[in-house]
Amino acid sequence: MAPRTPKLVVSIDLKKRPWEQDPPLHNRWHPLLPPVADVRVGDLFRVEMIDWTGGAVGDNDSASDIKTIDLSTVHYLSGPLRVLDADGIPAKPGDILVVEICNLGPLPGDEWGYTATFDRENGGGFLTDHFPCATKAIWYFEGIYAYSPHIPGVRFPGLTHPGIIGTAPSMELLNIWNERERKVEEDGTRSLKLCEVLHSRPLANLPTAEGCLLGKVKEGTPEWTKIASEAARTIPGRENGGNCDIKNLSRGSKIYLPVFVEGANLSTGDMHFSQGDGEVSFCGAIEMSGFLELKCEIIRGGMRQYLTPMGPTALHVNPIFEIGPVEPRFTEWLVFEGISVDESGRQHFLDASVAYKRAVLNAIDYLSRFGYSKEQAYLLLSCCPCEGRISGIVDSPNAVATLAIPTAIFDQDIRPRPGKVPSGPRLVKKSPDVLKCTYDGTLPITENPGGAAQI
Amino acid sequence: MAPRTPKLVVSIDLKKRPWEQDPPLHNRWHPLLPPVADVRVGDLFRVEMIDWTGGAVGDNDSASDIKTIDLSTVHYLSGPLRVLDADGIPAKPGDILVVEICNLGPLPGDEWGYTATFDRENGGGFLTDHFPCATKAIWYFEGIYAYSPHIPGVRFPGLTHPGIIGTAPSMELLNIWNERERKVEEDGTRSLKLCEVLHSRPLANLPTAEGCLLGKVKEGTPEWTKIASEAARTIPGRENGGNCDIKNLSRGSKIYLPVFVEGANLSTGDMHFSQGDGEVSFCGAIEMSGFLELKCEIIRGGMRQYLTPMGPTALHVNPIFEIGPVEPRFTEWLVFEGISVDESGRQHFLDASVAYKRAVLNAIDYLSRFGYSKEQAYLLLSCCPCEGRISGIVDSPNAVATLAIPTAIFDQDIRPRPGKVPSGPRLVKKSPDVLKCTYDGTLPITENPGGAAQI
Amino acid sequence: MAPRTPKLVVSIDLKKRPWEQDPPLHNRWHPLLPPVADVRVGDLFRVEMIDWTGGAVGDNDSASDIKTIDLSTVHYLSGPLRVLDADGIPAKPGDILVVEICNLGPLPGDEWGYTATFDRENGGGFLTDHFPCATKAIWYFEGIYAYSPHIPGVRFPGLTHPGIIGTAPSMELLNIWNERERKVEEDGTRSLKLCEVLHSRPLANLPTAEGCLLGKVKEGTPEWTKIASEAARTIPGRENGGNCDIKNLSRGSKIYLPVFVEGANLSTGDMHFSQGDGEVSFCGAIEMSGFLELKCEIIRGGMRQYLTPMGPTALHVNPIFEIGPVEPRFTEWLVFEGISVDESGRQHFLDASVAYKRAVLNAIDYLSRFGYSKEQAYLLLSCCPCEGRISGIVDSPNAVATLAIPTAIFDQDIRPRPGKVPSGPRLVKKSPDVLKCTYDGTLPITENPGGAAQI
Amino acid sequence: MAPRTPKLVVSIDLKKRPWEQDPPLHNRWHPLLPPVADVRVGDLFRVEMIDWTGGAVGDNDSASDIKTIDLSTVHYLSGPLRVLDADGIPAKPGDILVVEICNLGPLPGDEWGYTATFDRENGGGFLTDHFPCATKAIWYFEGIYAYSPHIPGVRFPGLTHPGIIGTAPSMELLNIWNERERKVEEDGTRSLKLCEVLHSRPLANLPTAEGCLLGKVKEGTPEWTKIASEAARTIPGRENGGNCDIKNLSRGSKIYLPVFVEGANLSTGDMHFSQGDGEVSFCGAIEMSGFLELKCEIIRGGMRQYLTPMGPTALHVNPIFEIGPVEPRFTEWLVFEGISVDESGRQHFLDASVAYKRAVLNAIDYLSRFGYSKEQAYLLLSCCPCEGRISGIVDSPNAVATLAIPTAIFDQDIRPRPGKVPSGPRLVKKSPDVLKCTYDGTLPITENPGGAAQI
Repeated sequence: MAPRTPKLVVSIDLKKRPWEQDPPLHNRWHPLLPPVADVRVGDLFRVEMIDWTGGAVGDNDSASDIKTIDLSTVHYLSGPLRVLDADGIPAKPGDILVVEICNLGPLPGDEWGYTATFDRENGGGFLTDHFPCATKAIWYFEGIYAYSPHIPGVRFPGLTHPGIIGTAPSMELLNIWNERERKVEEDGTRSLKLCEVLHSRPLANLPTAEGCLLGKVKEGTPEWTKIASEAARTIPGRENGGNCDIKNLSRGSKIYLPVFVEGANLSTGDMHFSQGDGEVSFCGAIEMSGFLELKCEIIRGGMRQYLTPMGPTALHVNPIFEIGPVEPRFTEWLVFEGISVDESGRQHFLDASVAYKRAVLNAIDYLSRFGYSKEQAYLLLSCCPCEGRISGIVDSPNAVATLAIPTAIFDQDIRPRPGKVPSGPRLVKKSPDVLKCTYDGTLPITENPGGAAQI
Repeated sequence: MAPRTPKLVVSIDLKKRPWEQDPPLHNRWHPLLPPVADVRVGDLFRVEMIDWTGGAVGDNDSASDIKTIDLSTVHYLSGPLRVLDADGIPAKPGDILVVEICNLGPLPGDEWGYTATFDRENGGGFLTDHFPCATKAIWYFEGIYAYSPHIPGVRFPGLTHPGIIGTAPSMELLNIWNERERKVEEDGTRSLKLCEVLHSRPLANLPTAEGCLLGKVKEGTPEWTKIASEAARTIPGRENGGNCDIKNLSRGSKIYLPVFVEGANLSTGDMHFSQGDGEVSFCGAIEMSGFLELKCEIIRGGMRQYLTPMGPTALHVNPIFEIGPVEPRFTEWLVFEGISVDESGRQHFLDASVAYKRAVLNAIDYLSRFGYSKEQAYLLLSCCPCEGRISGIVDSPNAVATLAIPTAIFDQDIRPRPGKVPSGPRLVKKSPDVLKCTYDGTLPITENPGGAAQI
Repeated sequence: MAPRTPKLVVSIDLKKRPWEQDPPLHNRWHPLLPPVADVRVGDLFRVEMIDWTGGAVGDNDSASDIKTIDLSTVHYLSGPLRVLDADGIPAKPGDILVVEICNLGPLPGDEWGYTATFDRENGGGFLTDHFPCATKAIWYFEGIYAYSPHIPGVRFPGLTHPGIIGTAPSMELLNIWNERERKVEEDGTRSLKLCEVLHSRPLANLPTAEGCLLGKVKEGTPEWTKIASEAARTIPGRENGGNCDIKNLSRGSKIYLPVFVEGANLSTGDMHFSQGDGEVSFCGAIEMSGFLELKCEIIRGGMRQYLTPMGPTALHVNPIFEIGPVEPRFTEWLVFEGISVDESGRQHFLDASVAYKRAVLNAIDYLSRFGYSKEQAYLLLSCCPCEGRISGIVDSPNAVATLAIPTAIFDQDIRPRPGKVPSGPRLVKKSPDVLKCTYDGTLPITENPGGAAQI
Repeated sequence: MAPRTPKLVVSIDLKKRPWEQDPPLHNRWHPLLPPVADVRVGDLFRVEMIDWTGGAVGDNDSASDIKTIDLSTVHYLSGPLRVLDADGIPAKPGDILVVEICNLGPLPGDEWGYTATFDRENGGGFLTDHFPCATKAIWYFEGIYAYSPHIPGVRFPGLTHPGIIGTAPSMELLNIWNERERKVEEDGTRSLKLCEVLHSRPLANLPTAEGCLLGKVKEGTPEWTKIASEAARTIPGRENGGNCDIKNLSRGSKIYLPVFVEGANLSTGDMHFSQGDGEVSFCGAIEMSGFLELKCEIIRGGMRQYLTPMGPTALHVNPIFEIGPVEPRFTEWLVFEGISVDESGRQHFLDASVAYKRAVLNAIDYLSRFGYSKEQAYLLLSCCPCEGRISGIVDSPNAVATLAIPTAIFDQDIRPRPGKVPSGPRLVKKSPDVLKCTYDGTLPITENPGGAAQI
């Protein structure tokens, strides 16, 4: 007789605040964060997690919690977990930790989520120069499906996944991170640019004691102060995995993570009911609390065997992933294209980020022909199972990026159609709209000069 | 009784050179190129095409034809075709031309292709700073499958598609192209950069009379001289579609193209037996001659109904695509990730091109653990049905891009595995190697500093 | 704010016996079984269920519970549920009840199941003349995956579904059932035959008070006695749905059920973690306890609109189904064929049952070449996601049936291969074997005369 | 340099009659039919074929060619081909011949086909007791798609396949066939029955010199007379493969055929543009001329290694198949169910043929709610890519069979829907209808007694 149910190693009490949970949570990456539990190779274990903001965003009628959010506190992670082999020997630096996602989902009794875009001066999003206001949409779940009162007319099955899963960095790797990211912030707008909107968004998210939660390390101790000043923020994905936001990391997937510290110290969080490639609105997935059922293996010496460092040190590696067999199936896709010419008509050189921005803008405007507001379309493309592709990256000077939307998620046929009756797209007003705040800042808004133009 | 076979509107004689074909081919975009044939809405018609180089690359034992190729002559296109409605009235500017790809394939009797990367000083490729040499691999077709004597151990079904399909630009649109692309070339290395390798590749491909082929316009006439000096090169994808290299545009797909000139003047070429997202080695698809069986519709006034211009004029639009129902199915994917940190360890800001470069480099090095040379892996990832995704584009400062490879194309299991026997990946030497030339230039080669490092 | 979790309408206490549950269960179909709860159109509600035998089969080391099982007690169902529209008006005869399966799975804490075949004289199975012994295999679940200590070398994702879902019959329909099934039993072996094995299996399962459980109807009352003597057994699928064993009725599916009594009186049970088409070993799915999350609609007058009766009365209809979007994906299938010639070499006329028997026998023998016992293969083909097709039903005298097995569920490559090394299939002894009892009866065993023969 | 195109081993001249072709065709199975060509393991070769009737059915406005067809002449096959290994040694009895279908399609210039059902007294079909008239529908191809002027409102991609592919039987196997099939015909209606309609259809198709075509064997010779009197008809599938009508045997599939005579003597024919599981109307696929591009391997001694005989001799085996990776993808299926109760309400015992008949009848009546005639629906379900499954074969007394129809092939939404407007299904009259003859015979027609009844 095998155990009939996964072993619960991290539990969440939804009635408690993030800093009250037991075992404690953390929101930074650091080698000295002590593990909260041990797991063994071959065990099936369950890890619960709160939503990335730890409940700061509510199922209510206003986006003001989004507008005023304190991003220094995200993401609340469950772990670290120390991984042992069958003999009780911990994973060691140089190993690969294989994590299989056997199951996952929302926490029972908490089957809802939200998609949002931040205010331009407090986080922003990929299109923040076009959409500077904080907005929010609530999603409710019906088993595998999600629907939103704020984005009517769509319902889709979730390709649910953890936005964040990663191992702890070593001190050496942490130093590399802090140094290179500090340099970006220091270089400021003189550095490489994203679509001319870089000045409106944080260039990097550097260590800060503000909002810091460090698991078993008690606030007020010298250890806490030291770690808080060094520990990496969880916003970007890095060599340890982390916030990769790979939307296909769902049931049945495997993740091959490099191990940098003894025990691997696996942490995870930021569960997404569903996300589009790119997670364009930033708080763009359907964010929720959730659980993972995991199983680990250790490949001893696996980094040397399988991961060639790509950079100055042996630590400059990236995880590998395997995709699971139960993704929702879609047959019909409508595909929007963008090239690396920006809204002002300026040519960029093989810049896939610009091309993707254009593809997303094209898709938003297209969907607005069918009764959606542009804000609805923007949030929808952040969280529905759309695919963002780098289609061409060699044909100077234009990168070509594409955004493919599964047509089956809509309650109307959104394909272009010839014929005069009905004339044009079938406009079905999709209201009510998303929840929306005012933008009170002074940064310039990108107007699309072609918006009103017609051939 | 319906017609039982597609109407042949452009035929190719494989024994003739590109400039000897009848109807004549062209290799530039210009509004004044006269149509070579008319097609009507509802007709099923067949268009044949030569490979993009017009036979300059041979099924032989050397890559020297690649090294010395004259890129001013590409791509040889079939068309333009004037599209009429059922009443014989041509498509008009402002309409959308819907092109359905009912069937396609290699030309009978010519079932082979090639994948190549150019010399760093004659075209290069996405990773030309790492791989400066001209290389080539030949592929033979067995019905739906391709295999290469130069990249043993793989065989895969083709997701065959035309690299180029587009309508003729209006004079106004052509001027916009020429102006914005000239500006990139003039700004040179002071402009936005791609991965620090931009100085080794053409920044743009501006109009030139050299290598120009203009269909029915006779060389030596004043008209020819004028058009040759203005006509856009076919290398990049643009507002009219063109070289989009969208690998999923296969059987059963539909393309919604904006119409800029009367008759639409549809041209197509650059058939690919198969391509990976990004077509990273530049001459990266399996390039071949081929045929298309097409069917058109016209959506009168469709641009206004469906395409919002995104830029300063009403012409700044992009086509829309619909994907067909018969793509090869793969279940298992191994996914490589890249973040926007370059090989020197430098942090870039949300740069998807850098992130994708890193993902491709990671995949190449990984595959080299299984007996492939890095050149074999580079060419393979250019042409096999791998998917390149923009996974995260908002988590400052790291863009996350992924490259997913279908594992079923290999004759060995390429997934990481625990266990000491066999130790490490199952190394099966894949020889012979690709055909390769020397690099005789002096541009610096990017060495991966971590290549030899080990944790 | 919408409700954040499904409403629990039937709960199961796994520590209690079937007849101790509250609300009470039932194991018969009858119009007079009172509903245990009401549900409304649009509600998301949860129904829990015990395994079909109500715990009679254990997670232990013996198949004797299978051998001696009392089949008069199966299947234990949850319900009936009375379905009301938004105004509180019940579904009415002539309506269609639409049931959407929003989610389902094993009961938390009880993640295991079993597959078995009964003794030839106590239920048997499709191949009981070949395999007369009771056998059993235990399966454990790791999230979406199942594995068995008794059938090593396979692991597969579940296409989980309820074996039984149906509405209550009217008295008129119940009488039709009882009459026609009694006739089969009375005609006995003079009636139509299945593969010559009919005499060893019950011809029908007629009403019996033995083992009867009738929900809210108290045993000992006159009502109980009357209902018990009339109520239909749950073994076969019928006009009301019931034990259809359609393996694709998983997450996201919809079922369009005819309504025969006021309120529809929906019942469900017999959850299967996974099943092969045909469920050939009879207790052939991976049987388990479980839960469903459901949502209902009513199509008023839908039977008249959508269901043409096919038989002497307006009640001779069948449900319609829609398949959901999240089935496990398999790319590669190995397909075994059978024709309607039986093991003795006798030709049958377009008999799909005989042809399918032959296909299953072929597949079992094939798999036994790879280290499996025939009993392991038989149980595996009952429960893994294999597809049973009627390929040809018109080419006299041979029906052609096929059985397609997804090759990815095995840990070895089971495809036929040329080459002398290793000679023949890669024999990897799959032990231990299934749990197995003796067969103590005297019915003749079908020996395959060709088993030892070789060309 | 590899050969760039498949080697043409059997060519068809569409302007010639079946008996005028060179190499000659044949329409019987016999060990003494001489090969028309040799092929070698590893060769890619092309085999062309005429439609199964050899042009007896025309693209015209009448079904009278169907009504009066001479079924003694079918199916016209291409071959036999003698298969040699790399050393020129032929395949030998006991080997397995592996045939890979690398490509296939209609013959260029002949892109059309037909679906038909025969007159009840000249061949009939699965539902001939309901539909006794000869009917016909013409299909035209647009690349991967087919549409019919006689069944408007549907268009679907073809899962094209050869209906017949098989090896020559040995004399011993041929004798087994003839003996067992003669017995069925002799036993007549006393033998096992199919759905009470058996008396209206040929019980078997025994050897006859009438209509016989024997390839290189000249008519009038003693050899011809002997072979003609013995040779097996091609109607049913048998141990050698033959008319298996497995609709998924398309591009990229592999067939593992037993070898009974030296050289294997592979023959193929009866190309289908598309077929539904069961091919219910008998001439039910979209029948056409076509070509195959094939590649062979030999597994020496493979029958002993992989195929257990299931019957009295070592020859009682069946082929194995592997399905290819490029099938059309469908996401949404509407599923009709049938149980083994016939139209008169009579209960049959686990009879999958009866259950499937009921499922097909249910689907036909359902589709007739959407504007189709029943004859249109019957022909459509014969040829569209619908799936026929044996869902339950153990739950006495009801077998459960299902028919799943991909909803995307229709130009309207055919799912049941609640709501009064429009009331009932969206009736779009689908005319014109199929071509249809009168039925002039006297056999009884099955009327559905429930057809007019309503609850």
